[in-house]
Amino acid sequence: MLKRLCLAGSALALLAVCPAPAPALAQTAPRPSDSVDPLIGTGGEGHTFPGAVAPFGMVQLSPDTDTSCVLRDCYPHAAGYRYDDPTIVGFSHTHFSGAGHSDLGDVLVMPVAGDDVPMDPGTPAAPGYRSRFSHATETAKPGYYAVTLADHGIRAEMTAGSRVGVHRYSFPAGKAAHLVLDLRSSLYNYPGKILWSGLHLRDDGVLTGFRETRGWAPGRKLFFAMRFSAPLTGHALVNRETAIPYKGFQGPGRDSDALAEKLGQALEERLDFGVLTRPLEVKVGISGVDEAGALANLDGEAGGFDDIHAQTQAAWDTALGAVTFEAEAPMRRIFATALYHSLLAPSIWSDRDGRYRGPDDQIHQATDFTVRSTFSLWDTFRAEHPLLTLIQPERTNTDIVRSLLASQTHSPDGILPVWQFAGRETWTMIGYHAVPVIADAYMKGIGGFDANAALDAMVASADHASYGGLGEYIARGYVPIDKEPEAASKTVEYAYDDWTIARMARKLGRSDIAARFEKRAGNWRNSFDASSGWLRARKTDGQFRTPFDPTAINYGSDYTEGNAWQYSWFVPQDQAGLFRLLGGDARTIRKLDAMFDFDLSKIDYSHAEDIAGLIGQYIHGNEPSHHVAYLYSYAGAPWRTQERLGQIVASQYADTPAGLSGNDDLGQMSAWLVFTALGFYPVAPGANEYVIGRPFLPKATLMLPGGKRFVISTDNLSTTNRYVQSVTLNGRPLTRTYLRDDEIRQGGELRFVMSARPNRQWGKSASSRPFSTSTAVSSPPTRR
Amino acid sequence: MLKRLCLAGSALALLAVCPAPAPALAQTAPRPSDSVDPLIGTGGEGHTFPGAVAPFGMVQLSPDTDTSCVLRDCYPHAAGYRYDDPTIVGFSHTHFSGAGHSDLGDVLVMPVAGDDVPMDPGTPAAPGYRSRFSHATETAKPGYYAVTLADHGIRAEMTAGSRVGVHRYSFPAGKAAHLVLDLRSSLYNYPGKILWSGLHLRDDGVLTGFRETRGWAPGRKLFFAMRFSAPLTGHALVNRETAIPYKGFQGPGRDSDALAEKLGQALEERLDFGVLTRPLEVKVGISGVDEAGALANLDGEAGGFDDIHAQTQAAWDTALGAVTFEAEAPMRRIFATALYHSLLAPSIWSDRDGRYRGPDDQIHQATDFTVRSTFSLWDTFRAEHPLLTLIQPERTNTDIVRSLLASQTHSPDGILPVWQFAGRETWTMIGYHAVPVIADAYMKGIGGFDANAALDAMVASADHASYGGLGEYIARGYVPIDKEPEAASKTVEYAYDDWTIARMARKLGRSDIAARFEKRAGNWRNSFDASSGWLRARKTDGQFRTPFDPTAINYGSDYTEGNAWQYSWFVPQDQAGLFRLLGGDARTIRKLDAMFDFDLSKIDYSHAEDIAGLIGQYIHGNEPSHHVAYLYSYAGAPWRTQERLGQIVASQYADTPAGLSGNDDLGQMSAWLVFTALGFYPVAPGANEYVIGRPFLPKATLMLPGGKRFVISTDNLSTTNRYVQSVTLNGRPLTRTYLRDDEIRQGGELRFVMSARPNRQWGKSASSRPFSTSTAVSSPPTRR
Repeated sequence: MLKRLCLAGSALALLAVCPAPAPALAQTAPRPSDSVDPLIGTGGEGHTFPGAVAPFGMVQLSPDTDTSCVLRDCYPHAAGYRYDDPTIVGFSHTHFSGAGHSDLGDVLVMPVAGDDVPMDPGTPAAPGYRSRFSHATETAKPGYYAVTLADHGIRAEMTAGSRVGVHRYSFPAGKAAHLVLDLRSSLYNYPGKILWSGLHLRDDGVLTGFRETRGWAPGRKLFFAMRFSAPLTGHALVNRETAIPYKGFQGPGRDSDALAEKLGQALEERLDFGVLTRPLEVKVGISGVDEAGALANLDGEAGGFDDIHAQTQAAWDTALGAVTFEAEAPMRRIFATALYHSLLAPSIWSDRDGRYRGPDDQIHQATDFTVRSTFSLWDTFRAEHPLLTLIQPERTNTDIVRSLLASQTHSPDGILPVWQFAGRETWTMIGYHAVPVIADAYMKGIGGFDANAALDAMVASADHASYGGLGEYIARGYVPIDKEPEAASKTVEYAYDDWTIARMARKLGRSDIAARFEKRAGNWRNSFDASSGWLRARKTDGQFRTPFDPTAINYGSDYTEGNAWQYSWFVPQDQAGLFRLLGGDARTIRKLDAMFDFDLSKIDYSHAEDIAGLIGQYIHGNEPSHHVAYLYSYAGAPWRTQERLGQIVASQYADTPAGLSGNDDLGQMSAWLVFTALGFYPVAPGANEYVIGRPFLPKATLMLPGGKRFVISTDNLSTTNRYVQSVTLNGRPLTRTYLRDDEIRQGGELRFVMSARPNRQWGKSASSRPFSTSTAVSSPPTRR
Repeated sequence: MLKRLCLAGSALALLAVCPAPAPALAQTAPRPSDSVDPLIGTGGEGHTFPGAVAPFGMVQLSPDTDTSCVLRDCYPHAAGYRYDDPTIVGFSHTHFSGAGHSDLGDVLVMPVAGDDVPMDPGTPAAPGYRSRFSHATETAKPGYYAVTLADHGIRAEMTAGSRVGVHRYSFPAGKAAHLVLDLRSSLYNYPGKILWSGLHLRDDGVLTGFRETRGWAPGRKLFFAMRFSAPLTGHALVNRETAIPYKGFQGPGRDSDALAEKLGQALEERLDFGVLTRPLEVKVGISGVDEAGALANLDGEAGGFDDIHAQTQAAWDTALGAVTFEAEAPMRRIFATALYHSLLAPSIWSDRDGRYRGPDDQIHQATDFTVRSTFSLWDTFRAEHPLLTLIQPERTNTDIVRSLLASQTHSPDGILPVWQFAGRETWTMIGYHAVPVIADAYMKGIGGFDANAALDAMVASADHASYGGLGEYIARGYVPIDKEPEAASKTVEYAYDDWTIARMARKLGRSDIAARFEKRAGNWRNSFDASSGWLRARKTDGQFRTPFDPTAINYGSDYTEGNAWQYSWFVPQDQAGLFRLLGGDARTIRKLDAMFDFDLSKIDYSHAEDIAGLIGQYIHGNEPSHHVAYLYSYAGAPWRTQERLGQIVASQYADTPAGLSGNDDLGQMSAWLVFTALGFYPVAPGANEYVIGRPFLPKATLMLPGGKRFVISTDNLSTTNRYVQSVTLNGRPLTRTYLRDDEIRQGGELRFVMSARPNRQWGKSASSRPFSTSTAVSSPPTRR
């Protein structure tokens, strides 16, 4: 919602939560990571976290500012940290970047100085071990986070490697150093969430433990191992459970909390180090496999805080260096941070030795790839995965596709992930969007996996009758709303996914599959009410469900986190077909304009999570709208796309904590910005085409494999010069409004010339429009 | 308690629960297993189970007759089955044999015929899926159990291999066959016990699943895999949880119970097979590691019901064949069943591939031995382990010692098991009695393990200050009762365990350890009140605690499951020293007589679990008394031992369901009978001596490794000829009243001549008594 945003000029901006933007960095920053501000998105609706993480790192070591909420009340704290909170509860090791639902916040650690060590966090008004803090003391950089805990006088620094997190705490002189480890703490907590947990202080001073939770992921297990740079002088291991019906028999040390080991559902440990003369470092490895895995992950990355920090900083500079660019602030910081946010997930999930916990909760071995998890596929199939496929083809996409396929192999349902983290399926959102991720990668030449086996896995997912009304969809050509909620959205998303299967099957020469799924790709028509021009939910009897309100947004409605305004545009595989249904280009453009210019004054969507960043009925804070601004180009009016992109970038992104208008959704919001700022966008992953919008950077270079470079140069870029006057590719005029993937991958130069006035002729002809040739699908409707 | 026993002539015997003894078998049974009656001990206090199990098998597939009890009320149902119960709830796959506490009862399966399939067990008065049954339809044999489920008209048969159980159900003609699998069912249940569970019906028809419970073993995990001989025609997977605060998102098939997978805390599955024309076989593998392990264990033992049954029957005949014997009924059945019960634990714990879950809840790999668990060491160090060391030296004892050592390696406390099952420590009972098990095996020449490493593990256990008051014991020479409960019992048991460490250290030439523990072996004196002749608990100030009542038996008292009457005799390492303290042989014998002849008419011990089988203050149903009858021999009066053994065997063992007067305790009650019936008993494991009592079999042969035979022949044995007239070993008169272990192991013949009148001279001289030579310890008291 705009009211929650801290954007320049917003009349509703709350000053208390809207800090002044940090000063712009020098134009030539010495390191790519210097331009990144991980605090962007930590206010408002972004749900990003500011803490330390390596590129795609397994550990996200970050402060949690409140963990007292229960279930849905926790939505604002999905990432643990909110910029407007006054206190820090502690530092935990796992966080989502921008998720709309949550979990995690594992293994919360908090330092306390002095003799009085509270064992409860308390409240902001009456702090226990939590502490007030000031943003003035805060530093957030890729792989580094620091803050001063005012109530304890402790400087806290965090860094993280691929599978380790390292804390460094500088205690006030002369005061005894303590840590509180609270295994009760969790994001999206509720009574009964912690199924089981354990702590074990080993003779060598290493603390190992685990926690099994019943959260978003059912029965999720997280193991950890923790080394301290100073010897323990004492400790207390306590179980805060009340009214345990059966305790079994008590082990050694029955009269003391100074046990070596404890199991229970509400464990805490106080760790004492006495008065220290140097900062305390706490190095933590985590694992989804077992404690030995956590310990091996811990010891597998050598060195202390500074070593890990230096390695991770270098890793970030390398990863971010995949796109070099020039930009003034604030775009420099916005773009760099968007790039950073797009390189966090899917995060590493397998242990150093290749073992990992699969969707069947069993341990499997990956022999020659790194297993990744945290797949927010309904979001990320759109731009995040195509971005990784483009700029991280070797490091991430082979791993990603193989991780998806391995997951299908071990899925109890035999299907690809839907919304997976920690190896476990959560069944969140709709569609089978691992399918376009794999198809898009395959169509773009990403190898390293068995394409025929992949196609089989995709087909298995698309044919899994008991999932999301697929049985009905297959039988009827649409999902009937009286059998399955959100039926309209499901129908069009399934049809798109089906089209990507058909594309891949054609390329593989498996024509039987191709033909079947080409037919299914036309199923969007079966849920489209041509008479009114809306995508609508149909019932089993073939009638559209009434009452119908294209502005209604409710859970369990005809649509998924949206309404007919957003979903009526979702036909990436056949926008031309859609536009014909809508009555041609002019009517289409009028409808697009009506969407952006819709008067919201009488509408309240504040009851709906994830609906934020509204420009009329264009909702940039959620994914169904993400491709819509580019649709003007399909209607022959790219200059209107250029206008809308300017409007969106200016209103939805800022270099402030509230600078993301909606959940970043594991990089999708950010990947949209990265592509858009470069000047093109993958409207239909699987098509091998990027629709040209307009650039927002004077210059950018994609550093591609094999030393190839794809340079985007923009002449005359300014706030007023918001229109593309002309485009050349490798020096020759580009008359079409799309780029082919191979044109980028082989390297070259795309040059834009910008102007204050639109070029209404460029891209107007049918043949110049995106998706105008081989990729089109014109299969007939499959109504029956 | 006698009132619960069904012994011939007991005035208190309840006819309703005391069936007539089964007819005696023919004297020359074709198979060793034919003489075994697994129903012995399933009534009264025995706590044995009647179901199917292979020798030391991982699976104990047995009927549960009631699972409705909660916690301590479950004591009578520790083995799941009670002979006097009228109904069977179902068949579950894990059971203890004779434990005094319980857990297990995992993966309960019950067949149901017809269209109405209840999903709750109901009560005996109003049965749900449970069924009435008649003992007349019941067959129990080693590795086989069968019963007719009267309410369903189903014949149920069970067999088990090393790591599999196989059910075979014959359904009534024309009625649909169903199974109910109830993961809620458990022994010693209570609200919250089931932490998490899962069921997954795979495409190939295999059902896998797991259950994690918070019972006697904390956070115990059990996985299983189940194959059916007929295809499923339908199924329903339901979670019976109520008021789940957070359910997450629903997977495929949200409107149906016909899911492929479900996770939760109260899972049940109904499995439908339609009308079958042949019996349904259900083959189940279990694992403590994971579902893959369960599946590999399942498939690792080939064949169907009859194959597995035949293999296991052969395995039993081989195992039982370690002792061949002649005996009339009922002793034939009593002895054969005792031998059977002594070959059940420690049961196999590692998977077929050697993986196993250790005491740290982590997965480890055993490379060249089979890991065993279910160590009821406070019970079994006495006679059960010495029996296995003698008759199963290769198959079990190397495995057992290595399992104990591996457990110490992975113990969070770095100590040997105390009371372990499923790889997990329960901290039940007292002492560190893995120590005498290892020392006894080592002293008797059992190899296959690193003796020096073993000694280190033993010392680590004996020096673990935070365990059971050991810090105080080490500092003061006794456990002070104001610091630690049951201090008197702990002091004397620690001192005995210490002596076994000293013995092994001497043999290994590690004299520093030997000297230190020889001194500790004398610590029993520090808790002995020489003025009164009782072992008593001392306080930190050195005073004995008052008030003192040698007949009091209470939890948290000075003693462990007993009183001064039983514990004052526990100095196996120095009975001669004890007898001197008591004032010499005559006074000792008078005190022993006073114990056996104590008038119980004014005493009620019914509040105390495990106190059963009373002969005065001699309590044969619990372990502290087990060596006491043999102590007359130490006082030069073996004829009195002979009398007492006759009295005990006649009153405490019978070939009826109530034929064990106390918990079998994983074979200890039975091993006592096996040794005693053979004519000798290991009063002090570690001493390499067996005290000669009197035989109860006309002839028995120990089939020893390398084809050696040790034959025990008894002339003139009869009820009246209860005294040993003379003994020869290999044809030469044996003037001492003990055998050395090497004398047995090298093979030979021990011949007894029995008489109706005692030989009061044999064994009277000091030099002829047990423990008269090298094994004695005469270290001074260590009071300070």
